[in-house]
Amino acid sequence: MSVTAPHPLDPLTPDEITRASKAVRPHFGGQDPNFRVVTLLEPSKKQMVQYLEKEHQKQPIIDIPTRHARIEVIVKGSHDENQLFELIVNLDSDQVVQKQHHRGKHSYIDSAYMQAVEKVCLADENVQAEIRTLKLPPEATVVVEAWAYATDGLNDMTERLTMCWFYMRFLESPDANYYAYPLDICAEVSESLQITKVYRLPTKPSERINEEKRPYDRRKMHSTASSEYHPELRPSPRATVKPYQVVQPDGPSFQVEGNRLEWEKWSFRVGFNYREGLTLHDIRYDGRSLFYRLSLSEMFVPYGDPRAPYARKAAFDLGNDGAGINANNLQLGCDCLGTIKYFDAYHNTPTGEPMKMPNVVCCHEQDDGILWKHTNFRTKNPVVARSRILVLQTIITVSNYEYIFAWHFGQDASIFCEIRATGILSTVPTDIDVNEKIPYGTVVAPGVLAPYHQHLFSLRIDPAIDGHANSLVVEESSAMPVDDPSVHNPFGIGYMTEQQIVEEEGGFDLDFNKNRTFKLVNENEINPITGTPVGFKLVPFYSQKILSHPTSFHAKRSEFGDHAVWVTRYQDGDNFPAGKYTMQSMGGDGLASAIAKRKEAGAACSVRNQDIVIWHTFGSTHNPRIEDWPVMPSEKLMVGLKPVNFFSGNPGLDVAPSTQDKNKSVMYTEGVSNGGCCLSQA
Amino acid sequence: MSVTAPHPLDPLTPDEITRASKAVRPHFGGQDPNFRVVTLLEPSKKQMVQYLEKEHQKQPIIDIPTRHARIEVIVKGSHDENQLFELIVNLDSDQVVQKQHHRGKHSYIDSAYMQAVEKVCLADENVQAEIRTLKLPPEATVVVEAWAYATDGLNDMTERLTMCWFYMRFLESPDANYYAYPLDICAEVSESLQITKVYRLPTKPSERINEEKRPYDRRKMHSTASSEYHPELRPSPRATVKPYQVVQPDGPSFQVEGNRLEWEKWSFRVGFNYREGLTLHDIRYDGRSLFYRLSLSEMFVPYGDPRAPYARKAAFDLGNDGAGINANNLQLGCDCLGTIKYFDAYHNTPTGEPMKMPNVVCCHEQDDGILWKHTNFRTKNPVVARSRILVLQTIITVSNYEYIFAWHFGQDASIFCEIRATGILSTVPTDIDVNEKIPYGTVVAPGVLAPYHQHLFSLRIDPAIDGHANSLVVEESSAMPVDDPSVHNPFGIGYMTEQQIVEEEGGFDLDFNKNRTFKLVNENEINPITGTPVGFKLVPFYSQKILSHPTSFHAKRSEFGDHAVWVTRYQDGDNFPAGKYTMQSMGGDGLASAIAKRKEAGAACSVRNQDIVIWHTFGSTHNPRIEDWPVMPSEKLMVGLKPVNFFSGNPGLDVAPSTQDKNKSVMYTEGVSNGGCCLSQA
Repeated sequence: MSVTAPHPLDPLTPDEITRASKAVRPHFGGQDPNFRVVTLLEPSKKQMVQYLEKEHQKQPIIDIPTRHARIEVIVKGSHDENQLFELIVNLDSDQVVQKQHHRGKHSYIDSAYMQAVEKVCLADENVQAEIRTLKLPPEATVVVEAWAYATDGLNDMTERLTMCWFYMRFLESPDANYYAYPLDICAEVSESLQITKVYRLPTKPSERINEEKRPYDRRKMHSTASSEYHPELRPSPRATVKPYQVVQPDGPSFQVEGNRLEWEKWSFRVGFNYREGLTLHDIRYDGRSLFYRLSLSEMFVPYGDPRAPYARKAAFDLGNDGAGINANNLQLGCDCLGTIKYFDAYHNTPTGEPMKMPNVVCCHEQDDGILWKHTNFRTKNPVVARSRILVLQTIITVSNYEYIFAWHFGQDASIFCEIRATGILSTVPTDIDVNEKIPYGTVVAPGVLAPYHQHLFSLRIDPAIDGHANSLVVEESSAMPVDDPSVHNPFGIGYMTEQQIVEEEGGFDLDFNKNRTFKLVNENEINPITGTPVGFKLVPFYSQKILSHPTSFHAKRSEFGDHAVWVTRYQDGDNFPAGKYTMQSMGGDGLASAIAKRKEAGAACSVRNQDIVIWHTFGSTHNPRIEDWPVMPSEKLMVGLKPVNFFSGNPGLDVAPSTQDKNKSVMYTEGVSNGGCCLSQA
Repeated sequence: MSVTAPHPLDPLTPDEITRASKAVRPHFGGQDPNFRVVTLLEPSKKQMVQYLEKEHQKQPIIDIPTRHARIEVIVKGSHDENQLFELIVNLDSDQVVQKQHHRGKHSYIDSAYMQAVEKVCLADENVQAEIRTLKLPPEATVVVEAWAYATDGLNDMTERLTMCWFYMRFLESPDANYYAYPLDICAEVSESLQITKVYRLPTKPSERINEEKRPYDRRKMHSTASSEYHPELRPSPRATVKPYQVVQPDGPSFQVEGNRLEWEKWSFRVGFNYREGLTLHDIRYDGRSLFYRLSLSEMFVPYGDPRAPYARKAAFDLGNDGAGINANNLQLGCDCLGTIKYFDAYHNTPTGEPMKMPNVVCCHEQDDGILWKHTNFRTKNPVVARSRILVLQTIITVSNYEYIFAWHFGQDASIFCEIRATGILSTVPTDIDVNEKIPYGTVVAPGVLAPYHQHLFSLRIDPAIDGHANSLVVEESSAMPVDDPSVHNPFGIGYMTEQQIVEEEGGFDLDFNKNRTFKLVNENEINPITGTPVGFKLVPFYSQKILSHPTSFHAKRSEFGDHAVWVTRYQDGDNFPAGKYTMQSMGGDGLASAIAKRKEAGAACSVRNQDIVIWHTFGSTHNPRIEDWPVMPSEKLMVGLKPVNFFSGNPGLDVAPSTQDKNKSVMYTEGVSNGGCCLSQA
């Protein structure tokens, strides 16, 4: 981060966090507020558009937007209940300018709280009595995993509730994989850390919650070689993989100034906050505006096991957990290869002090194979340009799972968002025989069921294609008719495209059978060569929509899961497709409801030639394989944005052809790697 | 290639090519046959299965399959017409054991023939007269591009015909991009190199072929900077990309012995032939059989412009051109990075002598990001294993286009086939104004229309999942009902999978809305933990089917384009989903017809627990962007094969965690790349 005055889009500095907390404390009398969030309130877009235009034109900027902090605190109410307040602090005056009490809303869950829940749970006599009935082997250590409660309609919705799932470790090491030994106990814990219920889980497809005190079945104690991932708990790894190093003798091709990055005609700003994690701002190519903001805005992981209490397993990994606060401290040579620039972030302690999160984002280049090639078959002269990409990567751990988020910037002016899912499957106990079938889970080890689930991501795309008045176009390719005399298609081979411009807010589906393509265009800027509006297209990830029934709480809480592409009018702060507060939400806060409410209220809902936002829902229906166990090989999902008739030709045409001279590859001959061989490119 | 006796699956050696041709010549009396193909006739699978089992069990092999060559020659018939013969030579006895005359069939087109066609075309007085009416600028050089004729029903189908499209070069350099200046002349050339027709092309959407002698419109002479890709004809390239080198100090992790490769528990054999190019054989992981053969079996590129004569633009790039004979000589440091093993191939000259094709396949490793990661949130200890992949790459040039085919082998036992399309768009002349629209093409430069077209690939997957008796399973994920009292789904969130085993040969479609998954399983081998048959699943590429009307020749000639997944019973030599001879084919030779014929003939068509073949059709509906001009940034398509309950856990679990120690990455600090910093992994 730069030592000069922060840019309006820079995250809060440590000093700003300290000042914001200081401004907030007096507003709660003698109470010590528990600071959950101290983050930048991004300036209004109206202000920022003016600021950025002047900045890029290198004009003097008079109206620098005032920096504001957005704070969330929890204080105890008169009945000892947690009350959630949101405050805005003006960082010029260090004054609270807004204070709001969000009744019935809950703050996100965090690992400190999860560990407190585990502690009280294990200290509880009823829980211990239940554990004793399991007659566990003496070497076992019971581990409790606290999960945010997913609304299922059976509870008072205003009180916060935590679900506790039980596992055990056999090995002494605290890094042993306890997910390999799920126990059939469940407990519920209130916000004030009271154990409200202890009961047994179903372990057969036909079972319901019951009171039978089954002892732990020792046949489930499988070998650690098949259940452990930590190298200290496993046999020696394979020794066949030889070192592979990325060497950049002249350093990387990017330039960094504070949070501003420049690379290969690209420029943008890196943002970071506790919830969305990495965000990208003011993305331009060769000086032309493309996107105002790109972010992962939500993800929802509903489990498909219909038995109670498993309907309560459905995690909003951003809203309930936070991609920012769960971001890993990335390790050189492990998470990232080559010459790496790391970005740190600052969160806050519960007392409102700044807390440094080192290396939460890495930035580096990768070779990406061939960018373009052509050989003139007459002259036999090849020209080949290799593709370099710039990668911004952040990795989060949400209990058992890991997600690797990486933005790829290309020399062809494309942007791709790659998500890799890895980590450990969430497991539940099962007692079925190998011949019995459970149609909503996979047995990955004796007594271990990995239930089916979905990962639903929402990518928020705030376009600024040559400006802020943009439109969404739906294009389809279809065969020309053969029996319409007005259509000239004598050989039956003609096909054409048809465009429809979306006029109103709403949700849309993908259809590869029609080659349906979603384009973001600026109707006011016509490409002088193609004669069509300049634009970018979405390269979607094809995936199944949410499988929960529309009447279920899962579906009502994650409305974005019902369509693959949504378009809305831009509104400041409208960053969350399942609502701002997802913890124990009851539905009605999502994209569809917001659109319906605006329509009902008579608000402007035209999205043609307006400042619009696109939300792409995608993910995977993850029916586990045993190959995902005990740690998952990365499952990749990829979404792209590519120019369509935006430029006047291939944006990567001026990338220099590749030469051995610079790339210094090595010829392998059987048994020998021949370092000296030099085939220079003609 | 090994100096010892060739393996039964090895391509023909130069000596074998010489011997095969020698054996063939006497069979054509005094005529000099034109040798089109001298290639390995792969042994019958029945023989090979026995051979491979013994080979892998290191048992003595008595029944070594006899090597056979398959030869195609052309000789002149009594009316000077080309006659195509196919012969089989036993390479033990050097005897022709079979000779067949394929009446009405044509051999593939090649660049020598294309250049001969150009020569006669330009020497023709009618052609020159037509060119004169264009009144071209004096610096122009006319270039003729010969294309195989795609059947449209207007011609005698037995005589070979070549379509000639005209372009011009302004620059003196023979590497100038003539596709930037399409001319509105067309000529047709017979097999005996006679010019049969010369006419003018339509240049307006409403136009038909006409006789108006329009001069070339000088307004189409756009700047070379926007139309040239060759660096010698362009301004200086960007100088911002700094060197990026892949260093493997201990050499690569693979072992090569002849055409056999071993890498990270994988073993397989590399094959190569004039038509399919790179093929893979006997693919095993950790000694277990997975696939008998993997190959790209065909590709079809139909253009969507309905106007005559453009219905004749539809290329079978394997059947008509050949992925093998058009394979590039790959360049170290340009096409491939790191430590590279190259494979050469041998084709034959027209006189039947061996012709070396150097470096047609490169084999190298790539870092592929993170293979798996988990951080225990209690101990904060991360474990991360980076993914290494083995890449086998081949690149072909088919006139204007390039295709990059790469097989990726993963440490997680996955195989991916990546295809990149690059090169230059095929163009036609146009005279429309910028305000006029053509709904089946994009104007990429003044007077230059890039018509819409499709690329349809057929990937042939010959599975051997733990043996040769395999089945195709179609699995779907669907919501459980909420109103069926027999189904326990109280919260409306349950979902489950249903499997259907395919019983008969046929074609199937993809459906991401149902999470439809195609699995190749061995019903005789049950995974002891999951209780389900061992299998691999297809990770498909979602794309539109062929858009040509079912009654059109395009559709009839490329039946594989009508479904995404086909299953057939294995038959020796059944490698081509659009038929063995695609040049001017008339339909009825494809997958659907073959299935129908077998059914009609009462042949066994059950595919359950049989030796089966899967054909995956995928591709792109390529409606060009101006960003694809004048040379296309690579368009990537990816298809995968992943284990599903085949192993007993993550096959990459034993990959050693990554360490900075080995990977030697470099920390970047603003302005300085800090080579010395060492964060060792805990």
